Amino acid sequence: MTETGNKSFDRIRAVFEEAYRIGLGYTDQGKVADYIPELAKANRDDFGISMIDGDLRTLSLGDCEKRFSMQSVSKVILLCAALLHCGFEETFSHVMMEPSGDSFNSILKLDLASNRPYNPMINAGAIETASLISGDLSFGDLLGYARELCADPEICLDEAVYASESKTGDRNRAIVYLLKSKGVLMDEPERTLDLYFRMCSLSVNARSLANLGLVIANGGLDPFTGRRLIPTEHVRTLKVIMFTCGMYDYSGKFSVRVGVPSKSGVGGGLVCAAKGPMGIGLYGPSLDAFGNSKAAVKAMEHISRELELHSFY
Amino acid sequence: MTETGNKSFDRIRAVFEEAYRIGLGYTDQGKVADYIPELAKANRDDFGISMIDGDLRTLSLGDCEKRFSMQSVSKVILLCAALLHCGFEETFSHVMMEPSGDSFNSILKLDLASNRPYNPMINAGAIETASLISGDLSFGDLLGYARELCADPEICLDEAVYASESKTGDRNRAIVYLLKSKGVLMDEPERTLDLYFRMCSLSVNARSLANLGLVIANGGLDPFTGRRLIPTEHVRTLKVIMFTCGMYDYSGKFSVRVGVPSKSGVGGGLVCAAKGPMGIGLYGPSLDAFGNSKAAVKAMEHISRELELHSFY
Amino acid sequence: MTETGNKSFDRIRAVFEEAYRIGLGYTDQGKVADYIPELAKANRDDFGISMIDGDLRTLSLGDCEKRFSMQSVSKVILLCAALLHCGFEETFSHVMMEPSGDSFNSILKLDLASNRPYNPMINAGAIETASLISGDLSFGDLLGYARELCADPEICLDEAVYASESKTGDRNRAIVYLLKSKGVLMDEPERTLDLYFRMCSLSVNARSLANLGLVIANGGLDPFTGRRLIPTEHVRTLKVIMFTCGMYDYSGKFSVRVGVPSKSGVGGGLVCAAKGPMGIGLYGPSLDAFGNSKAAVKAMEHISRELELHSFY
Amino acid sequence: MTETGNKSFDRIRAVFEEAYRIGLGYTDQGKVADYIPELAKANRDDFGISMIDGDLRTLSLGDCEKRFSMQSVSKVILLCAALLHCGFEETFSHVMMEPSGDSFNSILKLDLASNRPYNPMINAGAIETASLISGDLSFGDLLGYARELCADPEICLDEAVYASESKTGDRNRAIVYLLKSKGVLMDEPERTLDLYFRMCSLSVNARSLANLGLVIANGGLDPFTGRRLIPTEHVRTLKVIMFTCGMYDYSGKFSVRVGVPSKSGVGGGLVCAAKGPMGIGLYGPSLDAFGNSKAAVKAMEHISRELELHSFY
Repeated sequence: MTETGNKSFDRIRAVFEEAYRIGLGYTDQGKVADYIPELAKANRDDFGISMIDGDLRTLSLGDCEKRFSMQSVSKVILLCAALLHCGFEETFSHVMMEPSGDSFNSILKLDLASNRPYNPMINAGAIETASLISGDLSFGDLLGYARELCADPEICLDEAVYASESKTGDRNRAIVYLLKSKGVLMDEPERTLDLYFRMCSLSVNARSLANLGLVIANGGLDPFTGRRLIPTEHVRTLKVIMFTCGMYDYSGKFSVRVGVPSKSGVGGGLVCAAKGPMGIGLYGPSLDAFGNSKAAVKAMEHISRELELHSFY
Repeated sequence: MTETGNKSFDRIRAVFEEAYRIGLGYTDQGKVADYIPELAKANRDDFGISMIDGDLRTLSLGDCEKRFSMQSVSKVILLCAALLHCGFEETFSHVMMEPSGDSFNSILKLDLASNRPYNPMINAGAIETASLISGDLSFGDLLGYARELCADPEICLDEAVYASESKTGDRNRAIVYLLKSKGVLMDEPERTLDLYFRMCSLSVNARSLANLGLVIANGGLDPFTGRRLIPTEHVRTLKVIMFTCGMYDYSGKFSVRVGVPSKSGVGGGLVCAAKGPMGIGLYGPSLDAFGNSKAAVKAMEHISRELELHSFY
Repeated sequence: MTETGNKSFDRIRAVFEEAYRIGLGYTDQGKVADYIPELAKANRDDFGISMIDGDLRTLSLGDCEKRFSMQSVSKVILLCAALLHCGFEETFSHVMMEPSGDSFNSILKLDLASNRPYNPMINAGAIETASLISGDLSFGDLLGYARELCADPEICLDEAVYASESKTGDRNRAIVYLLKSKGVLMDEPERTLDLYFRMCSLSVNARSLANLGLVIANGGLDPFTGRRLIPTEHVRTLKVIMFTCGMYDYSGKFSVRVGVPSKSGVGGGLVCAAKGPMGIGLYGPSLDAFGNSKAAVKAMEHISRELELHSFY
Repeated sequence: MTETGNKSFDRIRAVFEEAYRIGLGYTDQGKVADYIPELAKANRDDFGISMIDGDLRTLSLGDCEKRFSMQSVSKVILLCAALLHCGFEETFSHVMMEPSGDSFNSILKLDLASNRPYNPMINAGAIETASLISGDLSFGDLLGYARELCADPEICLDEAVYASESKTGDRNRAIVYLLKSKGVLMDEPERTLDLYFRMCSLSVNARSLANLGLVIANGGLDPFTGRRLIPTEHVRTLKVIMFTCGMYDYSGKFSVRVGVPSKSGVGGGLVCAAKGPMGIGLYGPSLDAFGNSKAAVKAMEHISRELELHSFY
C-alpha cells in the first residue's frame, strides 16, 4: 500500500476542495500572459485542480478538461528526453544544474558568466537541451513521449500557439543564436528552435499534468501500466532540478512554502510531483509577477501544508 | 527507534571509513583559502569526519579534534538567531530566499536587481541578517547559542582569524556600506560587520559541526537534553535554504549528487543535516574552485549514496 | 589678440543675455538634488551665468555670487592635482580614460570588467585619483590649488555639506572599500574618502567656475598673472576627458549638441572651457535626470551655437 | 588656401614616412582577426597609409592598393545614410549617442540598461541604424553612396567575406532578434542583417578611406567636385561620434593620444578625418586587443603629434 493510501480519501478530497476554493479567490489578482498574442486569449477566471495518487484514485475540481499550452512545463519533458537519449554526463556537460537567480528569459548570465546555460528550466537551458536531441529525435518522437508521460493520447500541437510562438519568439531566437555564436549549440538553430516552440505549444489539461506529476513522483514508472518511462537514476535529478529551479524567480520561496518538486508554465499550467506518490496538475492562467499561476500557487500551499507533502519534514 | 537506528552500525562505520579513505585521496587536489592571511596557515592534508546519529552513536575519523574557523558555516547560526529573534516574516522581509546563481561575495545582483540580498547564505544576505540582530543581541549571546547548537562549550573566538578578517575584509565592508546606502541595513555598519566577522571566526571542530547537523536533522531538538534549540517552524526553512543555497555556486550540483541540507565554509568545514536523523561534520581545508572542501564533498557523495541519505528518493 | 577678441562684446553680451533668459525658463523643470540632505536646501529657481574671456572681459548674469558646493566639478581639480603630482603615466596606470556608459556612481563595471575605474570623472575613478595624492598632499594643499585655479581666495570648505557627505556617503564608502579589496586603492580608505568628500564640499560660485574654465581654455595659464597652473601637456588630456566624460550619462549628447569641454556637479555647478579662450561658469541647482543643471545645459546650447564654440566646426 | 596648405609638403611627407616606418615595426605585435574565417586570410605584415589634403595633394606609402573589407568602418556610412534619409531627430530617437564603455559586440547594456543601443558605432547601434534605412534603400543605393564618399567606383561587395559574415555572424543575428524582441527594430531582421553584413563586406583600400576621411574633414563636400555628400548639419555629429566612440574600447585613450575623429574596422582599416582638412586612410590587419590596427594606431600617434592634428590644442 502506498503512503498516500494511508490517508483517508475523504480527508484528501476535503483538503483539495478547500484548496480549490482558496485558489479561486486569487484568479482575479494576477494577469494572463500576453507576450505571445495567442496566450492573451485565455480566460483569467479559469481554474482547475486534478489529482491522481499511487492507488490511481483521482480528483478533478474546476476546469480540468480545458486545454492550454504547456509552455515551460515542457522543459521537464525536454530534460527527460535528453537524459534518456544522451545520459546524465553528456547532458550536464552542456547545461548546468544551478539555480540562476535570474528571470527565465535572461541573457545576462549566459553572456557574462558562462558558456553553459545555468539550468534546463530557464529558456537558454531548455533551448540548449533541445539542441542535444533535435538532430536525432523528431517532434513526433517527443509528442509520443509526452503522451505517454501524461497518459494522454489527445495531446497535440496547438497550431495557433505554435504559429504565435514562432512569429513572436524573437528573444528565444536571440538566445539560440547567442548559444550558436558561443559554439555550444549542438544542432541547427532553426531546427532546435522549432522543436522548442513545438514543445511549448503542446496542448494539455490539468489531468495530463497530474499524470505527468505522478510518473515522476512514482519513480519514473507509469502508474497504469507499470512500464518504466523515466530511468530510475534520472528521476531524482529531475525532482531536485524542479525543486530548486522549477518556479522561475519564486523557486526558493516555493521550496520553503510548498516544498514539492514542481514546474510552472506561462500558459497557466503547474505540474507537481508529491510524496505519496501523488501527482497534481493545476491550471489557472492568471499569473503572478513571476509568471506562476496565482491560484495554483495558493492552492498548493494549502494542499502541501494540510497533507504534509513538503519534501523536508 | 530512529530510522538510522535500523541500520547496523557496522554498516554505517564501514561506509564512513570508505568515505574517509576516498576523501583523503582528494586533499592534495584543492587549495587552502588564502584571501584571509590567517586561513592560509591551515594544513591542506588535514581531513576529518565526525558523525552522530539520533541514538547518539558517534564516529570520528581523522582530524576531528582539530579546531578551525567556522567562516560561512556560521551563516546557519546567524539565520537561526534571526528567525528566533525576529520571526519568519520579519527576517524575510529583509533578505530573500532565492538561490542567487552568483558567487558568495557577489555585489552584482544587489546592485542591479534588488535591494534585498538574495538569500542568507551569501555574504550580503548574512550581513543583512546580522544587522537584524546586532542591535539587540551581543556576540556573547550568539556565542552561547553557537555552543548550545554545537554541544561544544569550548567554542571560542579565534582572535587571530578575527583580527585577520577585520583587517582584510574590505569586500564585506563594501557590501555593508552598499546595504546601508540602499537604506536596508538594520543596524550600524561597523557593529553589524563586527558581529559578522566574529561569527566567521568561531573556532569549531568536526565534532561540533556533527552536533550542529544533528540538531537541525532532529527537528531543532538538542539530542542530548531534549531541549528545543530551534523552533519547529524554522527547521524546515533552514533545511530548504541549506539545500538550495548552502554550497556556493555548487549548490545545485551538490543537491543532485548528495541531496543533504549542508553548509560549507572556506575554513574547510562542512555541516550536513541528514535524514535519520544524522549529523555529519567534516573538516578539510583543501578547497575546490567553488570554496567547498574537496575531500568533504567527495566523502559526502559516497556516504549519501551508500546510506541513502538523499532527500529525494 | 585672442580669437574671442575678434567678437564684439555687445554681440557676446546679447548672446549670454538671451541664454540667461532661455535657461531661466527651465529652472522649474528639474529638481534639486536630495541624496545629500544639505543639497536639498538649494533654491531651485536660482540661476546664474558668469563669463570671462582671454582679454579678461567679464559678464555676470543672475545668481553669480551665490555659493554652492562643487560636488563633481571638483573631480577636475583632483585630476589636475594627480597629473601634476604623479604624471600622466602613473595616473593612468590607476584609472582609465574611457567613457563608462554607466551612471556616475555605478559599481557594476568596477566589479565586472576591470580593476581600474573607467575614468576620473565617475565616482570610483575620482576616489581612485584621490588615493593617488591623499598620502602626500593635505586638503590644505588642494584647497590652495583650487583657490588658484578659480582665482577665488574665498573658496572654503562648506562644513555643513562636508558633514552631510561624510555622514551619508555610504555608496562612496562602499566604492572605496571595493577598490581596496581589489588591491588598487593607493592610500588609506578613510583618508582617501575624507579628501574626496572635502573636495566635493568646496564652496564656489559661478564666477569661480568661469575662472577655472578660462585657465583650462587658456592652456593652463592663469589669465591674470600669466603663471602656469596646469602643465601644458596635461591640459589637452583634461579637455578630452571633460569632453567625453564630463556630463554623466549625457556626455555624448552634450558633446554633439554643445561640444565644449565641461564638467557638471549635482550642486548645480557647471564649468565650461571654451575656445577663444573663454571660461564659462554656470549655477542652477535644478537638475535634469542625468544630474546636470537643466538651465545651464539649455543656456550652453544657445551660447555654443551662437558664438560657434563647438570644438568640431 | 586651406590650413594644411600652410604646411610644407616636404614636412608632411617626412612625417608620414616616419609614421610608416614606426607602424611597420608593430605589424608583428598584433594578430589578424579570425572570428570570421575569411578575415583570417589577411597577411599580417601588410601596412599602408594614404593621405589626401584639401588641396588634393596625396601621399601613398606601402600597401595602399590592397583591398580589404570595410567591416566596422562601414558604420560611418550607415550613419551618414540614416542621417540623410531620416534626419537627426528620427535617427537618434532609435539609437543614442553615448559611448558605451563596453566592447563592440556587447549585449549587456542593451539587455540591462536601455532599449536603445548606446551609439551607432557598436554592432547593436549599427544594426539598429541599418534597420532605419533597409526598408527604403537598397544595397545598391548604399554601394553607390559608399563609392561617392570614397571617390572609388571600384568598391564592390567582397562575396567571400559576405558569405563568411552571413554564415558565422551568429552574435549579430542574436543582436538583431534581441532588438526585434524589444520592439525597436525598424525593419525585418533578416533584411536588416543582410544590409549590415553587405556593408561590412565592402571592399576598399587605404586610398578609398583617405578620400572618405577628407569628405568628412572637409565639412561634407566632395573635394574633387565640390558636391555636397553629407549635409553640413550632420558632419559635426559624425565627427563627435567618431571622436568619442570610433575606436572600440580604446576610444577614450585614442581621443587623448591622437585626438582625430576616426573609425576602425577589424578588417584592418582605419579612416581619419583630420583638421586641415586632411583625410587619412590606413590599412594594417594586425590588430591589437581592442580590435584596432596596431600599426595604424601607432602611425596616427606620430602623425597627429608632429602635424598638430589633435582636435584639442
